[in-house]
Amino acid sequence: MDYQRILEEIYREILPFAREGRAADYIPALAEVDPDQFGICIRTIDGATYCHERADVRFSIQSITKVFSLAMALGCEGDALWRRVGREPSGTAFNSLVQLEAERGVPRNPFINAGAIVVADVLAERFDDPEGRFLAFVRSLCGNDAIDYDDEVARSERATGYLNAAIANLLKYHGNLRGDIERVLRFYFLQCSVAMSCRDLACAFGPFADHRAPFVFGDVTLTASQVKRINAIMQTCGFYDEAGEFSFLVGLPGKSGVGGGIAAVCPQKYSVAVWSPRLNGKGNSVMGMKALELLTTRTEESIF
Amino acid sequence: MDYQRILEEIYREILPFAREGRAADYIPALAEVDPDQFGICIRTIDGATYCHERADVRFSIQSITKVFSLAMALGCEGDALWRRVGREPSGTAFNSLVQLEAERGVPRNPFINAGAIVVADVLAERFDDPEGRFLAFVRSLCGNDAIDYDDEVARSERATGYLNAAIANLLKYHGNLRGDIERVLRFYFLQCSVAMSCRDLACAFGPFADHRAPFVFGDVTLTASQVKRINAIMQTCGFYDEAGEFSFLVGLPGKSGVGGGIAAVCPQKYSVAVWSPRLNGKGNSVMGMKALELLTTRTEESIF
Amino acid sequence: MDYQRILEEIYREILPFAREGRAADYIPALAEVDPDQFGICIRTIDGATYCHERADVRFSIQSITKVFSLAMALGCEGDALWRRVGREPSGTAFNSLVQLEAERGVPRNPFINAGAIVVADVLAERFDDPEGRFLAFVRSLCGNDAIDYDDEVARSERATGYLNAAIANLLKYHGNLRGDIERVLRFYFLQCSVAMSCRDLACAFGPFADHRAPFVFGDVTLTASQVKRINAIMQTCGFYDEAGEFSFLVGLPGKSGVGGGIAAVCPQKYSVAVWSPRLNGKGNSVMGMKALELLTTRTEESIF
Amino acid sequence: MDYQRILEEIYREILPFAREGRAADYIPALAEVDPDQFGICIRTIDGATYCHERADVRFSIQSITKVFSLAMALGCEGDALWRRVGREPSGTAFNSLVQLEAERGVPRNPFINAGAIVVADVLAERFDDPEGRFLAFVRSLCGNDAIDYDDEVARSERATGYLNAAIANLLKYHGNLRGDIERVLRFYFLQCSVAMSCRDLACAFGPFADHRAPFVFGDVTLTASQVKRINAIMQTCGFYDEAGEFSFLVGLPGKSGVGGGIAAVCPQKYSVAVWSPRLNGKGNSVMGMKALELLTTRTEESIF
Repeated sequence: MDYQRILEEIYREILPFAREGRAADYIPALAEVDPDQFGICIRTIDGATYCHERADVRFSIQSITKVFSLAMALGCEGDALWRRVGREPSGTAFNSLVQLEAERGVPRNPFINAGAIVVADVLAERFDDPEGRFLAFVRSLCGNDAIDYDDEVARSERATGYLNAAIANLLKYHGNLRGDIERVLRFYFLQCSVAMSCRDLACAFGPFADHRAPFVFGDVTLTASQVKRINAIMQTCGFYDEAGEFSFLVGLPGKSGVGGGIAAVCPQKYSVAVWSPRLNGKGNSVMGMKALELLTTRTEESIF
Repeated sequence: MDYQRILEEIYREILPFAREGRAADYIPALAEVDPDQFGICIRTIDGATYCHERADVRFSIQSITKVFSLAMALGCEGDALWRRVGREPSGTAFNSLVQLEAERGVPRNPFINAGAIVVADVLAERFDDPEGRFLAFVRSLCGNDAIDYDDEVARSERATGYLNAAIANLLKYHGNLRGDIERVLRFYFLQCSVAMSCRDLACAFGPFADHRAPFVFGDVTLTASQVKRINAIMQTCGFYDEAGEFSFLVGLPGKSGVGGGIAAVCPQKYSVAVWSPRLNGKGNSVMGMKALELLTTRTEESIF
Repeated sequence: MDYQRILEEIYREILPFAREGRAADYIPALAEVDPDQFGICIRTIDGATYCHERADVRFSIQSITKVFSLAMALGCEGDALWRRVGREPSGTAFNSLVQLEAERGVPRNPFINAGAIVVADVLAERFDDPEGRFLAFVRSLCGNDAIDYDDEVARSERATGYLNAAIANLLKYHGNLRGDIERVLRFYFLQCSVAMSCRDLACAFGPFADHRAPFVFGDVTLTASQVKRINAIMQTCGFYDEAGEFSFLVGLPGKSGVGGGIAAVCPQKYSVAVWSPRLNGKGNSVMGMKALELLTTRTEESIF
Repeated sequence: MDYQRILEEIYREILPFAREGRAADYIPALAEVDPDQFGICIRTIDGATYCHERADVRFSIQSITKVFSLAMALGCEGDALWRRVGREPSGTAFNSLVQLEAERGVPRNPFINAGAIVVADVLAERFDDPEGRFLAFVRSLCGNDAIDYDDEVARSERATGYLNAAIANLLKYHGNLRGDIERVLRFYFLQCSVAMSCRDLACAFGPFADHRAPFVFGDVTLTASQVKRINAIMQTCGFYDEAGEFSFLVGLPGKSGVGGGIAAVCPQKYSVAVWSPRLNGKGNSVMGMKALELLTTRTEESIF
């Protein structure tokens, strides 16, 4: 498969959509990013890498980080994790408090904010230095020690993060957040602030594309079955209330972030990361969605 | 892969669960079925068939029929269908009116009852004899002209089907049901009443497991992309509010029915049907779920 | 209190609002009514009557009828009625199915459509000729045998009444509608079709304004406590999701209808009916609301 | 009317219910109160006072305080207050976040927690020393400078008040809480911690029972119309999701608190306060509800 040529063709084909959508601007650090950027990187399971455009520019991965924190929590808690968070699509917007209240504090899945805050609490309870451990795990996945948190982004998020604070308080009320609310929120926002390039992300998602290779990164060890199940959750829950749409149009397990990034895997073939800051009404990258739809159409490689 | 041996081992392993759950009994025709039956059939894409236990006993396929009606409607309407029904998981029980009301009559997906009633309306509007056309399509998929509706089941369902009648009236109120309510409901219940065996179902789902073969059955022609997208919708929406669970445990696109049947596909490998009437609290076959979970664990063949 | 002068002053004061709002037009019989009409009638508990403008024009009383059917059902069932319908404000739009589904078929109160349909079922179950009995009761309340159903309105309502049919089916599903759905709906729509003038309504609500007089009309006998409790339910539930607003601005128990009528009582003082077809966004008469607000402001007579 | 005798008779009649229900125990200060106490006090608008049992024991008035804070906010903001809080019954439990989220941060009414927190924010924004001003107002209403906050109760509430903190954060997210969250919550919990006896409360509610007397207490001046409208809101919203029930059974505007107190007014006749810590499933005092139901039945004095 000539991925390099395909990436170049895709880019030409999606250029007409380059001004569609709006970048997130709820914190200064996101508002200041040039919205008219695009990068993409494919990494096959045998390690070949194909990039196009700004594949080496780092951006705020935001919610894509939830895949890493889920992997880490599943590695240390095993199936006990599922007592505190579900694995069903939510059917409502990613930050909805309604379901959380109706279901007495057990978030629907680890990829809505409530679920990711519970996962952060699990890690904060388990480790003395969860921030250090988490970063070490992500660096190990990427094989790149330059990956780091962006403190300014994390601080900005916390300063305006009233909705996440509401969620954390509601979780605490229902007994499903055990640590100190401020500490857990700070850790949660730090996780989201990690800056990575498409190349970094493609590399970090590589192990999820190949359940046959051992998953041992930093302190985190996952079984083949756990790797596949993380993919299953990405498939049904990775795109908030556009999960069905992504599954329908793209047909790969993936996870998006409000910074404009999307990472996805084609099991036993490749991992892919794409980035473009302009978002559609559901909070997912316009050009990123288009690029991945064309990718699986051209290659005829999807999980279905 | 020695599927025959695997099926036999799976059956032995799930026997301890044979008395778990309760068969549906809301209509006499379902209540009278012996609940302690089990059948399974795998059909590979090159046509080999592996059966175990009562794979040739016919049962009421119920909601599994929604895959056939979606395929038929997509074949004749194309993407125009998506103006009348969505493709997102619902997040609520399969028969919930709440979402339908909040979203002004556009059902979340074609596999909740509201969505399937809209699909029935689409077919009833398009064809003079939708009942005949639909049956011809299903017979063609199975290559078996003995497949038929069960009028008694259909009549029973309609006689007690107040919730579906409520849904149909609500759709009509919102302008998303164009035909006569009674006619559409009768057609809908007829579709659900089709009686098939595991062998029939494995055969009928064969074309969904292999998007590379042409999909031309009766009057219905689908593109490879349409076939894959039907699988995508099964993946995210095929199991009501247990879609995430099935994706997580089994990792295949599939569809369940309240008669105790489940059909699923492993793209480019096989289609599979399993049947056992006792249901879990979410309305899915207890032994059927277990059997498929073991199948993908043993074979290490899932879409992830 | 010089009610006649007050009514005339009020009318002058509300004239600037005469073109605000829109009359209901979902059935032809309502759409054909001249929207620019206004009538008002006060009847004191000692029988004096004060009218202004078109107080003798008959209009479709619509939901105001729910007070009469509640009174009749309470008269024959007593407190057993409350097993089938609640008496709490609903907090959602008058026709919402959400609450009904969440609360398993027991409507919040007898003044939302679901509750009134249950009340109609109660009467249809109790009487061989509920239509005749109900009409006799209303005629007796008014002391006017010319009061009648408007068959054309009732037929129109049923022909387009998909939402109410959805509600009736949902009630049936939950076991809280015992009769035949079509018969109950027909009776319900007949009740709503009664045509009355402001003078008729003021007369019919007279007995609710004076719990000290015996309440014996047709076959219906109520205790003083039952009369007061019907007022209490009007107070908290009489104006759909504008009940708080009416209580706040007007301060009287009352009931509105989509035909533009409002009837209210000032206990131990008077009953009042006002009519003007143009409705606000909540479905209540614009001029009717203003007129009653001014009435209790001028007279300083409210229940608070 | 021989209120003293009536109070004594009522007490005898409700004694069989003395062990029904459970006192609130979510904070130590409430858990330590002897649950088997009862007090009642009526104060007529001409100043006569009738007490029975422990009418002089002070208890935590909790949500009853919301009447005072509403009065104070209405006095200083006038109708501008209604831009930030509604006046409709909520239809859901008093602490529900669902409605607040659906209605974008404007609480349904000032008596649910969200509404009272907005009112606290209004006062905290308006005054340099809101705590002092509020206490002065309540003391002035009671004519008793011994009335005070209970700091221990307020601190306990805050320490476990995760649900209210969630609400405050959600209000902040929607832009309807302007001050510092911690400061507003502290003020809110202080308000709820005020300790008063039945005699104090009957006195403090006296001015709400008589809109003809000038309402000038401390810095707070209300018009007759404002007084009546506060009563109207008590009527429709004073008892959480039991407002309809209280209106139906008792027929007076009133407000309850989780400490077991209820205050109510019979306009132009009397104010009444009752206290007994054991609560029913809706969070309202069992004996208090019964006592007031009997009071309006015996005296035949209700607003209907």
